[in-house]
This record gives sequence, structure tokens and C-alpha cells, in this order.
Amino acid sequence: EITELCASYFQKGKLTGKHVVITAGPTQEAIDPVRYISNHSSGKMGYAIAQAAIDQGAKVTLISGPTNLPVPERVERINVKSAEQMLEASLQLISSTDIFIASAAVADYRPSEIAEHKIKKVDGEDQMIIKLVKNPDIVATVAQHPERPFTVGFAAETRDVANYANAKLTRKQLDMIVANDVSNTQIGFNSDDNAATVFWPNGSQDLPLMSKAQMAQDILLCVHTRWVEKESAGISATK
Amino acid sequence: EITELCASYFQKGKLTGKHVVITAGPTQEAIDPVRYISNHSSGKMGYAIAQAAIDQGAKVTLISGPTNLPVPERVERINVKSAEQMLEASLQLISSTDIFIASAAVADYRPSEIAEHKIKKVDGEDQMIIKLVKNPDIVATVAQHPERPFTVGFAAETRDVANYANAKLTRKQLDMIVANDVSNTQIGFNSDDNAATVFWPNGSQDLPLMSKAQMAQDILLCVHTRWVEKESAGISATK
Repeated sequence: EITELCASYFQKGKLTGKHVVITAGPTQEAIDPVRYISNHSSGKMGYAIAQAAIDQGAKVTLISGPTNLPVPERVERINVKSAEQMLEASLQLISSTDIFIASAAVADYRPSEIAEHKIKKVDGEDQMIIKLVKNPDIVATVAQHPERPFTVGFAAETRDVANYANAKLTRKQLDMIVANDVSNTQIGFNSDDNAATVFWPNGSQDLPLMSKAQMAQDILLCVHTRWVEKESAGISATK
Repeated sequence: EITELCASYFQKGKLTGKHVVITAGPTQEAIDPVRYISNHSSGKMGYAIAQAAIDQGAKVTLISGPTNLPVPERVERINVKSAEQMLEASLQLISSTDIFIASAAVADYRPSEIAEHKIKKVDGEDQMIIKLVKNPDIVATVAQHPERPFTVGFAAETRDVANYANAKLTRKQLDMIVANDVSNTQIGFNSDDNAATVFWPNGSQDLPLMSKAQMAQDILLCVHTRWVEKESAGISATK
């Protein structure tokens, strides 16, 4: 009887038996033992998607930068700090990943070297230079991998949202990109609400202002629909 | 009877009637609307000192950078992000401040300009430079102000702790400095424990490994002792 209950529970999910891997939160890129470069991502959107994927019966792994959010029940969380650590964790899981959702706000650049000791302020030196080098592009690396899962990116922009998002979709060879305008302080990084537009190679869908929990469900519905279309078109994006 | 109880409660505090202003936490220095430079300060030490000062009957104002800590009861918290905001808040209170304790981990440098829009990653550009300028030195500015309170600084070092701390004490004209070695990961920024050495112009005292709550009490005892000595020596450091 318990077996039946369990089976009926898991059968109702659209993502039953699938492994969804989600990156979330900011990354922290060390300058020295005490200083770092980071960004204002709260991680709320990624954690909401993790919850929504669990609700659809998926096995969920959350690769998370530093946040203060509780781990949703039944979600496995892997804690990372830097973009390089996040990429490494993503690649370690790639052969078992069906859907990869890159919601983390990954630092584009990191300091070219990490000072071993705290960098001292020098008297008379009123300026300081930090040299940065480009970080690996996690979502593009996953999307262009021989074992690529269905790959979803995010674009946080402050202007020209549709143009930048479509350019990223093509250039990084993503299956889908979720774009929002972070110049609107009512939504985005630290808010519980969000508004976004989802783009895929031949279409788009507006997701008007709603809770991040609701948006997570709508994004997963988009993902599922596109994934089924892509598979039935004979272009298998998943393993 | 209630009046008596209140009076007896407040009379027992060494800092009754005094206004203690404490800076705490990290500062965040914006690079653009989403990115910033910060550091690993949790704010725990400063918040513990605020609690200890309340327990000694003081009026306490906490000027705090971004932390996830609750405000101790009866403490007024002023929220700031950047070093410049922290300095401004400190100077606005200076004429009513008896004791100023600068426990915040203030960024020494900030980006020389804040980009209005999110800085885009440029294809083909593998490097990026961030130009930084020196931030105002909050504790030195307060210590050298005509209306200076009794001024206590902190020094988080990764080597040569005593030398760097004594040099800062003299150069910034502080009354006292609390120095700890943040290269020891068992103590310091994210720990609930701490070990430190307190230096003043003619002496020092080791504070061995203990809880930050206990250390806050010991630091305030040091402050009070030094303050009484300084006043009785006829060098009034307070208003």
C-alpha cells in the first residue's frame, strides 16, 4: 500500500525520474584572504526553481554560492564559492543531468591572482588596481559539452533586455534563456517577486510580475514543453 | 518601586549615561548596479560589543554594514553600505559620542567610479581592470576630530600583528586598538570565538581564546579602565 502511495505521488510529476541540476546565488571571487568581489544575487529564484522541480517529482541538485536561504526538503545542496568551483561541480554531475538550469549570478571576471596575505593599504598610494581575468562561462561550457543536458540560462540586464538575451541564447547554444531587467528595483535580486521573458530559438513568452515561487513553476512548465517538443522533433537534447 | 528598580538597574552599569557608538560588519563598495567589493566580516564582534555596552547601562548606536544579525534590544541601528556612508553617519553623531568603537571591516579602497549600467563582458577581452581609490579612514578621522570621543580601533591582520597594530595606534592617534590574527581560521570573522591583544599608548593586554560575548565584556572593561586613567591624568578624551 505504501509502495502504491509512493508511486502515485511520484507519477503525478512531469519531471519524475529526471535529474535537474540548478546553480543559484552569487559567486565570491577572492582578492586576498579577507576581500572578495561578489554581487547582489539572493539566490531566491534558483531555490524556488529547486522547490518547483521537487514538486514535479525530479531529483534535484542545487549548486549554490553563498546565500542565507534554507535548503528545500529533498534537495541536495553542493556549496561553492567561486565560478571555477561552480563549473567543476556542474561538470562532475553532467553525465547524470537531464536538465541544467543556470540561475546563479556568476562573476564574469575574477582577480588574476589571489594575494596570500591581506593586501596592505600603502601610505601615499591613493590608487590601487585590481587586474581581473575572465571566468569560465559555466552555462556555455555545459551547453557545448558532448554530454549536454537541456540547458537553460539566465540573463540579468539593465537595458536592451531582449537583444542581449537573444544574442546570449544563440552565442552560448542554449535551449532557453530567462531574461529580466534588474534596473527595475521592484523585482529581481532581493525581491520576492519577479517579472521576466523566456526566449528559445523560435519563440518567447512573457512572464508578468508574480511571486518567484509561481515564476519557478511557470519556468519549469516552459522547460518541460520545449523539452518535449525538441525530443519529438527528433533532436534529442537529453540523454 | 519600579522607579527604584530601574534606578538600581541602571546605576550598576559602568557606562550609565554614556553614548557608545559602534561601527560593525563589512562595507560594500559598488562597482556597478549589481557588483560590489566586500569582505568576510560577519559583524558578530561589533554586535557583541553593542550588547555588552547596553548591559553596562550605555546608550548605544550601531552603525552597521550589511549583516544578517538581529539588532540587540535597546540598540539603535543605522544601516549603511559604503565606507563613505559609514563615515557620514559617524560624524553626524560625533558631538554626542563619548566612546567610539570602530569594529567594522571598512574597505580600504573603493572603485574610482560606479558604472551606471551593469558592465558587459566584452568578447575577445580576457582582462579587465578595476581602478580603486582610497576610502576615507573613518577611525582616524574621528580620532583626529576637534570633538573626538575616546576612540578605539580594530586591526585584522594576517601577520606581524603587534607591529602593524602599534603602528596604527600611533599613526591614527587612537586611544586603543584591538588586534587579531585573521589568518587563524579557528577565530575571527565567521567564528563565535575570538582571541586578540589590546594595545594602548603605554601598554597591552592579551585576551586569550574566548567567546565573542565574553571578549566584548573584556574589551569594554579595558576601555573603561583606560578612559578613567586618561581622565584622571587630566587629559580629557571625552566631552
